[in-house]
Amino acid sequence: MALLRKLVNRTRTSQLLDKEEERKDLGFGTRITDTGGRLVNADGTFNSRRVNVSFWAWADIFHRLTVMSWPAFFAVTFGIYFIVNCLFSFVYLGIGIGHLSGIEAGSATHNFWEAFFFSAQTLTTVGYGRVAPIGHLTSAIAAFEALIGLLGFALGTGLMYGRFSRPKSMILFSKNAVFGPYLDINAWMFRIINESPNELVDVRAEVSLSRVETLPNGQKTRKYYPLKLERSQVNFFPLSWTLVHPITEESPLYGATEQSMEESDTEFLIYIRATEETFLQSVHARYSYRYNETVWGAKFRPMFDNTKIEGIVKVDVQTLHVYDEKPLNS
Amino acid sequence: MALLRKLVNRTRTSQLLDKEEERKDLGFGTRITDTGGRLVNADGTFNSRRVNVSFWAWADIFHRLTVMSWPAFFAVTFGIYFIVNCLFSFVYLGIGIGHLSGIEAGSATHNFWEAFFFSAQTLTTVGYGRVAPIGHLTSAIAAFEALIGLLGFALGTGLMYGRFSRPKSMILFSKNAVFGPYLDINAWMFRIINESPNELVDVRAEVSLSRVETLPNGQKTRKYYPLKLERSQVNFFPLSWTLVHPITEESPLYGATEQSMEESDTEFLIYIRATEETFLQSVHARYSYRYNETVWGAKFRPMFDNTKIEGIVKVDVQTLHVYDEKPLNS
Amino acid sequence: MALLRKLVNRTRTSQLLDKEEERKDLGFGTRITDTGGRLVNADGTFNSRRVNVSFWAWADIFHRLTVMSWPAFFAVTFGIYFIVNCLFSFVYLGIGIGHLSGIEAGSATHNFWEAFFFSAQTLTTVGYGRVAPIGHLTSAIAAFEALIGLLGFALGTGLMYGRFSRPKSMILFSKNAVFGPYLDINAWMFRIINESPNELVDVRAEVSLSRVETLPNGQKTRKYYPLKLERSQVNFFPLSWTLVHPITEESPLYGATEQSMEESDTEFLIYIRATEETFLQSVHARYSYRYNETVWGAKFRPMFDNTKIEGIVKVDVQTLHVYDEKPLNS
Amino acid sequence: MALLRKLVNRTRTSQLLDKEEERKDLGFGTRITDTGGRLVNADGTFNSRRVNVSFWAWADIFHRLTVMSWPAFFAVTFGIYFIVNCLFSFVYLGIGIGHLSGIEAGSATHNFWEAFFFSAQTLTTVGYGRVAPIGHLTSAIAAFEALIGLLGFALGTGLMYGRFSRPKSMILFSKNAVFGPYLDINAWMFRIINESPNELVDVRAEVSLSRVETLPNGQKTRKYYPLKLERSQVNFFPLSWTLVHPITEESPLYGATEQSMEESDTEFLIYIRATEETFLQSVHARYSYRYNETVWGAKFRPMFDNTKIEGIVKVDVQTLHVYDEKPLNS
Repeated sequence: MALLRKLVNRTRTSQLLDKEEERKDLGFGTRITDTGGRLVNADGTFNSRRVNVSFWAWADIFHRLTVMSWPAFFAVTFGIYFIVNCLFSFVYLGIGIGHLSGIEAGSATHNFWEAFFFSAQTLTTVGYGRVAPIGHLTSAIAAFEALIGLLGFALGTGLMYGRFSRPKSMILFSKNAVFGPYLDINAWMFRIINESPNELVDVRAEVSLSRVETLPNGQKTRKYYPLKLERSQVNFFPLSWTLVHPITEESPLYGATEQSMEESDTEFLIYIRATEETFLQSVHARYSYRYNETVWGAKFRPMFDNTKIEGIVKVDVQTLHVYDEKPLNS
Repeated sequence: MALLRKLVNRTRTSQLLDKEEERKDLGFGTRITDTGGRLVNADGTFNSRRVNVSFWAWADIFHRLTVMSWPAFFAVTFGIYFIVNCLFSFVYLGIGIGHLSGIEAGSATHNFWEAFFFSAQTLTTVGYGRVAPIGHLTSAIAAFEALIGLLGFALGTGLMYGRFSRPKSMILFSKNAVFGPYLDINAWMFRIINESPNELVDVRAEVSLSRVETLPNGQKTRKYYPLKLERSQVNFFPLSWTLVHPITEESPLYGATEQSMEESDTEFLIYIRATEETFLQSVHARYSYRYNETVWGAKFRPMFDNTKIEGIVKVDVQTLHVYDEKPLNS
Repeated sequence: MALLRKLVNRTRTSQLLDKEEERKDLGFGTRITDTGGRLVNADGTFNSRRVNVSFWAWADIFHRLTVMSWPAFFAVTFGIYFIVNCLFSFVYLGIGIGHLSGIEAGSATHNFWEAFFFSAQTLTTVGYGRVAPIGHLTSAIAAFEALIGLLGFALGTGLMYGRFSRPKSMILFSKNAVFGPYLDINAWMFRIINESPNELVDVRAEVSLSRVETLPNGQKTRKYYPLKLERSQVNFFPLSWTLVHPITEESPLYGATEQSMEESDTEFLIYIRATEETFLQSVHARYSYRYNETVWGAKFRPMFDNTKIEGIVKVDVQTLHVYDEKPLNS
Repeated sequence: MALLRKLVNRTRTSQLLDKEEERKDLGFGTRITDTGGRLVNADGTFNSRRVNVSFWAWADIFHRLTVMSWPAFFAVTFGIYFIVNCLFSFVYLGIGIGHLSGIEAGSATHNFWEAFFFSAQTLTTVGYGRVAPIGHLTSAIAAFEALIGLLGFALGTGLMYGRFSRPKSMILFSKNAVFGPYLDINAWMFRIINESPNELVDVRAEVSLSRVETLPNGQKTRKYYPLKLERSQVNFFPLSWTLVHPITEESPLYGATEQSMEESDTEFLIYIRATEETFLQSVHARYSYRYNETVWGAKFRPMFDNTKIEGIVKVDVQTLHVYDEKPLNS
């Protein structure tokens, strides 16, 4: 009774609200209706950009230094090392090269490099001592520089650890999804494998479909549907895994054709979450297949090879992307 | 049957208990009924203070050094560095400046600084060697100081990493909430955006309303109500998100006016939890809007811009706080 | 039907099994029935000991170095530093003091300390250079020692971070629980407060009662009951929190007296789990009250002080343990 | 009605799909039907291998350096230290031994080692200074090497911390499972204990049975069944824990004999997950018992010893594997 009354109230208050609450939305909204781009890029990032962010948010140094590539990381490290040494070199020259024992003063360039190398020996705390500070001001600068060196190094250690230890999934996705026969019906399928020696457990997949639909009033709107998978979780993931969305009558893809998928700018959004075994951290992977990345009338070639080498099951990663043509069930 | 009997028993035992168990409480209790202050401050901290805590709880050094601002952190670091060097300098002077080779003894001030810089070279493990310890006692002190330096540096490295890696949300809240038209009814709304390049997923919001009510016996008590949101979770958060509490008949705000909200010292408490993508850590944000931070008869201006630059969706962070006047639905 | 058939089957197969599956057990088993000791100690550790564990399990160095007290940690650090330097000192002396430049050979003790300090300067990588290795063997040992020093320091850094960052709750428990009047009935209550400036959110409590009961056949067995709390979770925890187990007819304590609790060796086991805000880590606390730590006919004095200093709610940690006598409801 | 219609639709669409969705699979698939090997090895790793993985996935250095044994880790560290010093030694010799002050040039071997030890003193930032770089090129190389040393050391620190802090369970499994009498029926049982001083809480166990079955059409297929445990979770784990799968009529082992288990290549797969108390991290353990590791007609000897030393419960780890023969219930 209470429930019924509640429902009646709600309906009386706002029918539009009820509709709105039922609408699925992954967080992209309904207005992206031109078919020029994709929602999720191939590397899993979102195809959007925030402008006019504050400087500090933009800079977010730790995040940037953590996610950048290794070559970029080393380039930044060496660049900063060089610049800091240059700055301190100028300071030592400004105080006077005479306050550095062991240097035979020469040309300006010679003096600069001698001061530069003294700075490097101080910053890294090597401190050979062939060149050493004399006089209180130079000694103070050197004491300051050594501390800066230690702090910078502390930062580097933290970054190094952050870069290495952050959860990374090495899940590979098949280049194409396939739309092919499955049991006695058809299904939309893609395939994944864990390439890393770091095993994954408790692997869960969520697949959504996003497409542009035309409302009765002619307005275009982007809609989102979760796709039911034949199996959306596996406990262990030592082999490959083919994810299957069977085309039953409840599927939003029931009756869809290659052409209708193109017209509606269909994109399949995939989100996979798992636990890696070295640190038992969560890892995740995001991926998307657009309509033109689905091959019609095809089936993946089995990767699983029952021939065992010394009793070990063998999986060939190279065959992940391989599919064979196979007519659809009708 | 069992359930019924149980219920009967309960009722017989204590009707007051049943009431108490149903009462919502966020952990603030019911007695904060004067309208002088807020429950949650603008920076998300609680507006309360514990007094007479033990020294160690108060000091909780790691926590303090982790959450303090960067300038404060560097000031503390340099301060400690300076003080520790001073202390060791006095020890070396106490033993005798003669036990430090390479120093030409001079005025007391001169000797102090020479010992100070030797100490700094030892603490940072630079160890140029222009000045070096002679004699067993001075050597022992120096060996001890070098170990202290390494331990202190180990601590600094840990702190640096802790500061950088700790989960921080860069969620920006609109300066004001708005009470405005929504579909065919009205709603209380606020808006958030993730300012960081570090994407958030699985964003969940909980909004509660806290206000002072007068009991039938005239006593004032603080009550708490969870507010139902039209959508309380999004999977992805690449754009902005407007959180909407629709004013239906079930809403505790049904029939509320600007004046009634002031009289009841209404405060909206917001708690947002999400997962950031770099380390897949949980991040959270707390915020509160008081009655006078809600603008009546207004609507947020869309931040979402469908014009794409090179196929990329663009969001202008600066428009987060912008709203337009719009009459309420009646 | 299926369910019914299943139930019948089960019953037919084993009535004892059904009973066993329903029995509550926290992991202590049923056989601890002498009343000499408690299950959980005051510091939250279990009152049990594993004997004959393997050496490596016993040693589990990282765990020990992480949980030991700070004085013990520093004592171990200095001890290892001293011993390692002694060992290397003997090696350098064995090769010959002549291979260390800058040392004027003297008595055996003098030579030992000179080698010892050279070792310390190498291990910490200070390397003044007043004493330096000459000859390939001594140089090789020194190169090895410097690497050992770096590795040891790497270890120390990790330990330092581990010690500081590991989740610690600073939840204080009231020294006694009280059994006193609550609303129109009675209740068993205790009180907690977070002493740290590091706020806790999402605090959940589980309270169990453990007591020895006599089976119909006269055998003694230890039984466990979860205790229902009037409120077992709070979102925020800025103030104190009194946990209340109301004595209703369903309570296993219904009808219990001070004497019956002693005779049955009653122990209340408390487990609290929360999320701390600095790193959003889980923290937990375990505690236990034995029968003789419950005060009968008492009530906690309110800690919450409505007087605000500059609009801030004030809580006095010192009053956590304070209770007042108050007759039980009948 | 809606549900019914839905079910009818489903059935009409594909009966095979319904069957497929009900099939249990742990992620190993159905095709491993030869009885030559096991699914899970004794150390918890999967008995499978991925071939043709990319170089970077294969190398995944951090993972390898984190999980390798300590002797291997130290061997790798010393190896890299040696090689890097050799490389820099050759560079210094190439520039000219004359650019290193303090070295008396001699034979090629002598020069190499002198350069080698200078390199070691630079890489570790010891920098005695007896040997020091002269000339810009040599100084630049040394400055570069010192930075490399610091970066390498930063890496080592991160690895050291990663190795120590990663979640490790020290759960010991009894060498054999037993199939023996339990209450008034029989049960398949194994026993575990936590060997580490680091306590575990919230211990959960999942046990599956995997065996090869022959389909009506004669094809062999591997099937998976979850095994119901008499108790699958304990809050605390201070003592040993015997996990019991009672053989009721619903058990897939109902009616199984020692011979039938061998013929069907039965393997029991165990997955245990818990929370350790030092860092409140998740830890897990995987184990498997094959048919020939189950002892028929036996029962574990109690490890729990009620004799208390100074009121402390004592558990003898050595008796974990001990069982006594005991005839099965019929």
